[in-house]
Amino acid sequence: MGLLAKGKPVADKITEEVKKEVEQFKGKNIFPKLKIVRVGEREDDLSYERAAVKRMNSCKIECEVLELSADISQDDFAQELKKVDGDETVHGILLFRPLPKQINENDVKFIISPEKDIDCFNPINVAKVLEGDETGFPPCTPTAAIEILKHYNVPLKGKNAVVLGRSMVVGKPAAMLLLKENASVTICHSKTENLPDVAAKADILIAAIGKSNMVTSDFVKEGAAVIDVGINVDSQGNMTGDVNTTDCIEKCGLITPVPAGVGSVTTAVLAKHVVKACRQINNNIE
Amino acid sequence: MGLLAKGKPVADKITEEVKKEVEQFKGKNIFPKLKIVRVGEREDDLSYERAAVKRMNSCKIECEVLELSADISQDDFAQELKKVDGDETVHGILLFRPLPKQINENDVKFIISPEKDIDCFNPINVAKVLEGDETGFPPCTPTAAIEILKHYNVPLKGKNAVVLGRSMVVGKPAAMLLLKENASVTICHSKTENLPDVAAKADILIAAIGKSNMVTSDFVKEGAAVIDVGINVDSQGNMTGDVNTTDCIEKCGLITPVPAGVGSVTTAVLAKHVVKACRQINNNIE
Repeated sequence: MGLLAKGKPVADKITEEVKKEVEQFKGKNIFPKLKIVRVGEREDDLSYERAAVKRMNSCKIECEVLELSADISQDDFAQELKKVDGDETVHGILLFRPLPKQINENDVKFIISPEKDIDCFNPINVAKVLEGDETGFPPCTPTAAIEILKHYNVPLKGKNAVVLGRSMVVGKPAAMLLLKENASVTICHSKTENLPDVAAKADILIAAIGKSNMVTSDFVKEGAAVIDVGINVDSQGNMTGDVNTTDCIEKCGLITPVPAGVGSVTTAVLAKHVVKACRQINNNIE
Repeated sequence: MGLLAKGKPVADKITEEVKKEVEQFKGKNIFPKLKIVRVGEREDDLSYERAAVKRMNSCKIECEVLELSADISQDDFAQELKKVDGDETVHGILLFRPLPKQINENDVKFIISPEKDIDCFNPINVAKVLEGDETGFPPCTPTAAIEILKHYNVPLKGKNAVVLGRSMVVGKPAAMLLLKENASVTICHSKTENLPDVAAKADILIAAIGKSNMVTSDFVKEGAAVIDVGINVDSQGNMTGDVNTTDCIEKCGLITPVPAGVGSVTTAVLAKHVVKACRQINNNIE
């Protein structure tokens, strides 16, 4: 029977560390601050925003939300974003994506300075993900997956990690982060032949495909660590992951639940990124 | 007995295609031009430069070399590079790396415009490699490996590709390019456990580790395509690859020699990138 690896203890520990650093900053009259930029009122964004605001509060990080109209023009949006980026009291900026259709992401993605770009919007941070450059900010969700693996002492070095999914928000950065931890990494996707066989060779399996309960026990190697990054909603309106937890828990060594798994760690990573940005902006003060 | 997949026919075919496009450009009074920027006189650089100049000549692409002193200052170097980038007659810029120690790559890597950055120096092109954005310019060597696989009709979609090595010049971009072709991709490195076993599951094996003859037949699956990106020099001064070709050729389906394999295709890819840059700069004229 595998360990049900909940996100809460991981998030709690990160929160405690972040709080300590925020206290130290305050002793130097530096007040770490996150600015959330939301365009429109999508339910997903609002739900994540509530969780992020709550987390920043528990971390004593200042947090402001800039809400922009869903029909804002490209020019007005660019101007608003420049203003946020230019605000010296702001250390980290979280911009919800996708942006509405009238806004061309390519034309605005350089506006957030790489130093404040804590959720990997600016191509300079995207490049740092591929390079494994630790001054950058990989997206929060795959970073949360790695935090969970580390917290539960899952060996990564030299191990066989398989990532199901190749998105820019989870799959590819997760692969690069695992590589940075010296795992051997396989990236699979919808075109992969014999997917269950490939997955069943993984010591660490990251599921980020976006198909409810797709990963069953035949995907899982005995004793493997299974990290479920999926967030799906089933026909009854319940939140489900990409992994059929009930079917897999017997066989695996560790498995994260959905909800209460990876999702509950992402806002803690966001907070960690805000203090990291604050530290880097203030020249790595101790 | 596997096919010895030489680079020359691949390079020849690319050269022919490039020549045709150069002719079309000339009909519109556009003259594709490569500028090579070399700092100092390292033998590796000089050797590649000679090959590149020769290839541009056969493609009828204009080619100029800017040679800078090995002890040039950071400021002078930045100024020279800006001048090259600002030259409207130049469509592609190849800068040899690594740069001498007194030059901080981080401070100059944005100078070459992404549109002219045909060998992936600017982070904007690095980001495009991870994103699989086809407007970018992945490094020439891994691109040459993919060109060879395509030329010899090696199926990639859904297949199991294993990349040995995780450098920014070969391993990681090769993995991203294979992913773009819908292969499942495993990235291995010096910390990988059971490396021969992992390699021996590959339908496509890319060796880019930098250890002479390290890949022996126990790394090779029956019928696999083996692409040797290694360039090493043995104790007798002979050029060797990462793959022991004699040992592997019986078992594999296809194998590239060293020399006369991947290396002979890179300058053709360079030429292809120059005309692509020229096309994109001129707004995709037909």
